Amino acid sequence: MEPELNTAASTTITTMTDAPIETDAVVIGAGPVGLFQVFELGLLEINAHVIDALPYPGGQPAELYPDKPIYDIPAIPLCTGQELVNNLLKQIDPFGATFHLGQEVTTVEQQDDGRFFVATTQGTRFLTKTMFIAAGVGAFQARTLKLEGLDAFEGKQLFYRARSADGFAGQHIVIVGGGDAALDEATALAAPGPNQAKSVTLIHRRDGFQAAAASIERMRACCERNEMRFMVGQPTGFESSGDRLTALQITDPQAVTHTVPLDMLLVFLGLSPKLGPIAEWGLDIERKQLVVDTEMFSTSVPGIFAVGDINTYPGKKKLILCGFHEATLAAFGATTFVFPDKKVLLQYTTTSTRLHKVLGVASPTVD
Amino acid sequence: MEPELNTAASTTITTMTDAPIETDAVVIGAGPVGLFQVFELGLLEINAHVIDALPYPGGQPAELYPDKPIYDIPAIPLCTGQELVNNLLKQIDPFGATFHLGQEVTTVEQQDDGRFFVATTQGTRFLTKTMFIAAGVGAFQARTLKLEGLDAFEGKQLFYRARSADGFAGQHIVIVGGGDAALDEATALAAPGPNQAKSVTLIHRRDGFQAAAASIERMRACCERNEMRFMVGQPTGFESSGDRLTALQITDPQAVTHTVPLDMLLVFLGLSPKLGPIAEWGLDIERKQLVVDTEMFSTSVPGIFAVGDINTYPGKKKLILCGFHEATLAAFGATTFVFPDKKVLLQYTTTSTRLHKVLGVASPTVD
Repeated sequence: MEPELNTAASTTITTMTDAPIETDAVVIGAGPVGLFQVFELGLLEINAHVIDALPYPGGQPAELYPDKPIYDIPAIPLCTGQELVNNLLKQIDPFGATFHLGQEVTTVEQQDDGRFFVATTQGTRFLTKTMFIAAGVGAFQARTLKLEGLDAFEGKQLFYRARSADGFAGQHIVIVGGGDAALDEATALAAPGPNQAKSVTLIHRRDGFQAAAASIERMRACCERNEMRFMVGQPTGFESSGDRLTALQITDPQAVTHTVPLDMLLVFLGLSPKLGPIAEWGLDIERKQLVVDTEMFSTSVPGIFAVGDINTYPGKKKLILCGFHEATLAAFGATTFVFPDKKVLLQYTTTSTRLHKVLGVASPTVD
Repeated sequence: MEPELNTAASTTITTMTDAPIETDAVVIGAGPVGLFQVFELGLLEINAHVIDALPYPGGQPAELYPDKPIYDIPAIPLCTGQELVNNLLKQIDPFGATFHLGQEVTTVEQQDDGRFFVATTQGTRFLTKTMFIAAGVGAFQARTLKLEGLDAFEGKQLFYRARSADGFAGQHIVIVGGGDAALDEATALAAPGPNQAKSVTLIHRRDGFQAAAASIERMRACCERNEMRFMVGQPTGFESSGDRLTALQITDPQAVTHTVPLDMLLVFLGLSPKLGPIAEWGLDIERKQLVVDTEMFSTSVPGIFAVGDINTYPGKKKLILCGFHEATLAAFGATTFVFPDKKVLLQYTTTSTRLHKVLGVASPTVD
């Protein structure tokens, strides 16, 4: 296996020495509401940069229920989470927003000129006139295995994301989890071929899975062919030698502890949201929600708006369709910061020649 | 031609002697927001009766721009007005709302038990716990020809809606208007066949039309074949004999007045909205808009909600997507009137077994 650290490090260094990106709007969160925020800003000719902790756009629907049906998006009797996201991505396509994915915002500091300095975990930095927090329940982070001292191996022998593309040929792999990600990763690494692992052990707390029937069947078939094995149990400890992780200790339902030797440990316990540093930006917070008005969904700091599940106001319902409305009024709220000398009026996409131009569609000529 | 009056009159009499319809919710307006109001009420298991002045559901998009594109419905990159309406009708199908079309609400009176007595121009009467005014800019009414005394002929020789289906075979027809409705009606009545009129004269203030290119072409071709004629001019007077309208006087651009004899006068000058009796129901009004809160979009009378273009609050934008949000919070607001002893909680259509039952879809079984 090739070491990967160098490439990543040099990218980071380049970014760090660059000047911050100057922009009119930064949207934090690429879920449905963050994406529609880009659309409404775009109609008002405000270009946006979008930041998300996940490596792809779509937020909760893409991450948690891509194939599940949604029935309450207005005028869409039925769509899946991923279809919703795909439609929104298509809708914002004319606006060419820049996405900064797989990174979280760590720093937000207002400058003397009123703009906000924003920096992310990847070292991307912005100077922006407005900010839209569309962060849902917070940044999604992988649930970690709570074993004291284990985090020392993260990124070396312990991973919380699918890695099958890298190949762990000839290695002993232990996978923890009972969802699609765990099962699919196990069967991918166990499959005969040049990338086949030396051994694959899947560990889950019970003999039952929250996964597609086909994934479960494929895993069972791999076990029958002895390409991998499945164990019921809970990780309760680990063994190491020097700076090397050597085995995981698994306690089974009969309270017997087994030692499973390994080269690589892959953990898929799902994602859990973290409000994270948002709590430290000096915004009014009520029960982990950002307090906003209902006129422009502004937080307590003028220029910073909060839309979607992360905000709260009297009557608030955590529904995607409500976030769409909030993003719309927030976009109008932003115009006073982006175009301080201009009164921006509402126009309609059906009739406005200006909006047709912005959307890149032909205006019908009417006599 | 058969007289039609008897059938219509007997229907009205039957309705008048019936007891009022008792219901939990009456929605006034079958435009996009009124239709989505039915959906959100349906999810909360509140059945609705819907009233609209137009003879079909869909409101402004169906009436004013059925074939024009809309780009800003969230997650629908492009749809026409009619497609939007069709999708909403499909979405509310599980809830079996009752539509009362072609009638306007004239009376709203709160009863001692808190319910509202609602009556329409067709004599339909309701006793309802809640009311949702989703009336857009008001009830659409045909723009009338402003000639003193002409209204005496309305419904006999003067009509403001397309009548080609009835056939005016062998009669002299005058049609006033320059839109699709006027042109299509003219060419339909002029077409050779058993229903062909004796003569068709189309009158418009100028030689230019707000209509589809195909409609204009068809009309010009009819004129070339002498099946009809087109005159530029403005109606400035009329002639009558006894209780019979005999001719329309048209003043042309050279200020010459022509007399056009007729049996039937069809006028298509478009629709204009009227706030109408809503202004007299004792609700707080600001510049012809109903004042609402943003928690549940209640008017100044508890139990009566206002959603969509007819309401106003700080930040209000007259956008369909905002009306969807308003209808959602208003539906939750209604629960305290419909289910006074029950605390109704938000559930999600993706995961709630109760909502799947209400929507008539199968719940997926997950291990």
